[in-house]
Amino acid sequence: MLRCLCLISLALSCIGAVLENCDRSQSDRCRRISQEEAMHPRLNVPKVSFTNRASGYPHEKTSDYWINLGHQHVEVKINRRLNTNRAKNVVFFIGDGMSIATLASARVALGGEEKELSFEKFPYSGLSKTYCVDAQVADSACTGTAYWNGVKTNYMTLGVNAQVPLGDCEAALDPTTHTESLAKWALDAGKSAGIVTTTTVTHASPAAGYAHVADRMWENDSIVRKSGCDPNEVTDIARQLIEGPVGSRLSVVMGGGRAHLRDSSIPDEEGGFGFRNDSRDLISEWLNDGQPNKRYVWNRNDLLNLPSNTEQVLGLFESGDMQFYLESQERQTQDTEPTLEEMTRSAINILKKNENGFFLFVEGGRIDHGHHYTMARAAVGEAIEFHKAIEAARQLLSEDDSLIVVSSDHSHTMSISGYPTRGNDIFGTSDRTIAKDGMPYMILNYANGPIQSNQYSTSGRVNPESTDFSKWSSLYPFHVPLDMETHAGDDVGVFASGPYAHLFTGTMEQSHLPHLMAYAASIGNGPHNKKDVVLLNPT
Amino acid sequence: MLRCLCLISLALSCIGAVLENCDRSQSDRCRRISQEEAMHPRLNVPKVSFTNRASGYPHEKTSDYWINLGHQHVEVKINRRLNTNRAKNVVFFIGDGMSIATLASARVALGGEEKELSFEKFPYSGLSKTYCVDAQVADSACTGTAYWNGVKTNYMTLGVNAQVPLGDCEAALDPTTHTESLAKWALDAGKSAGIVTTTTVTHASPAAGYAHVADRMWENDSIVRKSGCDPNEVTDIARQLIEGPVGSRLSVVMGGGRAHLRDSSIPDEEGGFGFRNDSRDLISEWLNDGQPNKRYVWNRNDLLNLPSNTEQVLGLFESGDMQFYLESQERQTQDTEPTLEEMTRSAINILKKNENGFFLFVEGGRIDHGHHYTMARAAVGEAIEFHKAIEAARQLLSEDDSLIVVSSDHSHTMSISGYPTRGNDIFGTSDRTIAKDGMPYMILNYANGPIQSNQYSTSGRVNPESTDFSKWSSLYPFHVPLDMETHAGDDVGVFASGPYAHLFTGTMEQSHLPHLMAYAASIGNGPHNKKDVVLLNPT
Repeated sequence: MLRCLCLISLALSCIGAVLENCDRSQSDRCRRISQEEAMHPRLNVPKVSFTNRASGYPHEKTSDYWINLGHQHVEVKINRRLNTNRAKNVVFFIGDGMSIATLASARVALGGEEKELSFEKFPYSGLSKTYCVDAQVADSACTGTAYWNGVKTNYMTLGVNAQVPLGDCEAALDPTTHTESLAKWALDAGKSAGIVTTTTVTHASPAAGYAHVADRMWENDSIVRKSGCDPNEVTDIARQLIEGPVGSRLSVVMGGGRAHLRDSSIPDEEGGFGFRNDSRDLISEWLNDGQPNKRYVWNRNDLLNLPSNTEQVLGLFESGDMQFYLESQERQTQDTEPTLEEMTRSAINILKKNENGFFLFVEGGRIDHGHHYTMARAAVGEAIEFHKAIEAARQLLSEDDSLIVVSSDHSHTMSISGYPTRGNDIFGTSDRTIAKDGMPYMILNYANGPIQSNQYSTSGRVNPESTDFSKWSSLYPFHVPLDMETHAGDDVGVFASGPYAHLFTGTMEQSHLPHLMAYAASIGNGPHNKKDVVLLNPT
Repeated sequence: MLRCLCLISLALSCIGAVLENCDRSQSDRCRRISQEEAMHPRLNVPKVSFTNRASGYPHEKTSDYWINLGHQHVEVKINRRLNTNRAKNVVFFIGDGMSIATLASARVALGGEEKELSFEKFPYSGLSKTYCVDAQVADSACTGTAYWNGVKTNYMTLGVNAQVPLGDCEAALDPTTHTESLAKWALDAGKSAGIVTTTTVTHASPAAGYAHVADRMWENDSIVRKSGCDPNEVTDIARQLIEGPVGSRLSVVMGGGRAHLRDSSIPDEEGGFGFRNDSRDLISEWLNDGQPNKRYVWNRNDLLNLPSNTEQVLGLFESGDMQFYLESQERQTQDTEPTLEEMTRSAINILKKNENGFFLFVEGGRIDHGHHYTMARAAVGEAIEFHKAIEAARQLLSEDDSLIVVSSDHSHTMSISGYPTRGNDIFGTSDRTIAKDGMPYMILNYANGPIQSNQYSTSGRVNPESTDFSKWSSLYPFHVPLDMETHAGDDVGVFASGPYAHLFTGTMEQSHLPHLMAYAASIGNGPHNKKDVVLLNPT
């Protein structure tokens, strides 16, 4: 109680101590003030202040400005009516790895801290808990299973419950372990369904909607075999996409990943060859199954010029993952690489032909990849493209009958640090402080990252001034060297607009999301909505 | 388009490349798989798996378990009625520095990933944007001004708009720069008001409710003078608490910070002396102003044994900040240090005597301090105490007439990284991977931290195995050496329960929060609620 505990364990000179009774208070006061000052540093005059806003923010300096904004916000909210229409259409957007810090960074990159991403304008939001049955920090497969199927499962397993151990060749063959997805519920209710992603269409996030496998890596038969399983028994993800009871009924499949659908003897449109070892060309099989008005497209021009009678489309715009948006800008590959917004618009135009409505899944899949490489610009660039796709969807579809839900599967370790000046370049250094090692430091940092990075040195921190951070592929600093940056375990946001959007608030288990969407659309077999299900085409 | 772009800028061996047309696909496939595996590592068998849960989670292995949980969640939400009662009482809880990652960590520390903090059970939630007028990453003063007064302002300024530059002696003397707080609105409507914190009661967060100063550091007259201003002109925060038009009307003031209220000649109850240089004892002045039923208490026992007729209480339980909860446990100072829950209960019991209701501000103020020191256990420990205080408040007050809003002022840079096993000790190492430098790494890491830390070395990463991480004061690893860890710029959560809780969703400017609370309680002078204001005691 009455003693000076200097927290020797801190190895800090009394920092953090509750300083009582140390002595006649002069040094005590002195120390307390220095602690307070350390916590709330009196910052340097900005070196590069208001880089985006040379004039500063004069309109924000009055009280009235903010009070009026606040009152307007109240008015909007108190005049909001609950939308309890049945959702004819549901579009579910997942920003893979889109952490809360990604949102704030994207906002600044888009034009300033005061900006709103399209889905941040949505009337309702909440938080989603992303852990999986055996993992405190999740991957995109177990989380995909949760948000597509309403069931949490094991790390890296897909469309199966947690009775299936990762990589087990046999366990997932038991259909009682399989989970049912929003896509199945929609299709069974006579709606159309589709998936759009910037990764391979067989990647974990989209695949959780149509596949049931013990290992997300099994995108083609070669990988299944390499894992020690028999591809004649264990159906790879690409085959489940083309042949499976859900995959084969999807009207829209867009993204990358041609190689997983083709044998290694089959040349790719942009060079290279397929990855399969079963002599099959699943793209041809899909296209030539006898159904009318199907189109396969592999580049942006063909996508944008689809015949108006198109009822089903398979759009595969890369052999592997699609390019980062900023990468395609630099490489000037826009002719072949559609944007996520363009794919989303095209998907909606096809799906909306079904008078019973549709379910569409759209993934900004490479926000995650950008983060894994610690390429913060690439990650944030993808988040901005994601925002644009959502804006387009909300414009194309009425709030009266179309629910849009936006979330993420898991977080990443990037943080926004220091006390940079308002309007500072979020991709630059914290402009008002220099670190105690005499070097500036970046606003964006990761907890860990790839050991091969130019930001890693065994002898301590790399001086940011020795690095060019202006490229889309610039690597950002981190602390722990790994093969790649990892996911993070904090919650992700949920944003909703349209029928029953008001259900998407509070802190939720990620696995609750599809049940809420199913209720809004009156699909699925939950007791809550049986009365409303429109069973036009049950399987 | 048709070329191999190996992203030389990455200094990674083709990591991140979109690998097309490199060669006849064997190496291409090989590289793509290795990239995928790096992003989704096949983890080691846990070394310390299920430390908290020896049995694992067998009940979570069935699909039905999750589907039933999901359906129950839907039922709860669709049966929820909007609460449009007028809020007689409002309790506003701020977890200072309580980032989203703090929530997830506290949940695991509390018992497991599947647990819910008390306020995570609240029906509505949203996100708050925390930037200030001149700062991309905020401090607790400009954010306090926003969430108490509905006006964003400059870094480190308090209760004034952004016309006041930090530290300007004169500017804040102009009353037109002053902002009005929720406490003032409540008092003007005849309600009682109070503040509770674990920091000094003159600290930025509580002070934003009653003070108007150009510098949050001006907690007493000595600091004002040290800053070059004349304390006879610039009224320090402690004097504004005791003499000010809002401070003097507060029925409840609890926290730490006796030294700021007393001259350096006046001995402290627990040793030491005051910090003031104006010969004043503001505690005595407050107590002896002639009003009846006032009590000053300085220790837990006196707080818990307040006479039942107490109408006003000044509880100051430390000379400076109160101790971290875990610190008081270790030091066995529970006799003198009440918990945040105990202070909250006591505050509500006093305030609820006013039949017009009350406004209470409760701050878990040292979550922030724990993070600043990179003492993750201390920070999370404070967050758990904060959770308990909210649980108590919700139990004491009916949802019918009492709105509870929970938020934070700003984030911190701590992340939850790696892919630890479910149920792993969140304060331990990521149990399934070893870093590429051959050492384990902690789950919790900061972007930056104090250079004096035992976790900082100029020669690279400190081996976690060389450190004891079991103490409440253990320091966690970081990348950039500073005086102390900084705040972060990502959004914080907002959680609400009670009348008009449904307004607290979506992504909001932090400055909107008090306007929403004012609407719910029919206080303040916004045009939206004039018709309802109960003006019993206008000033």
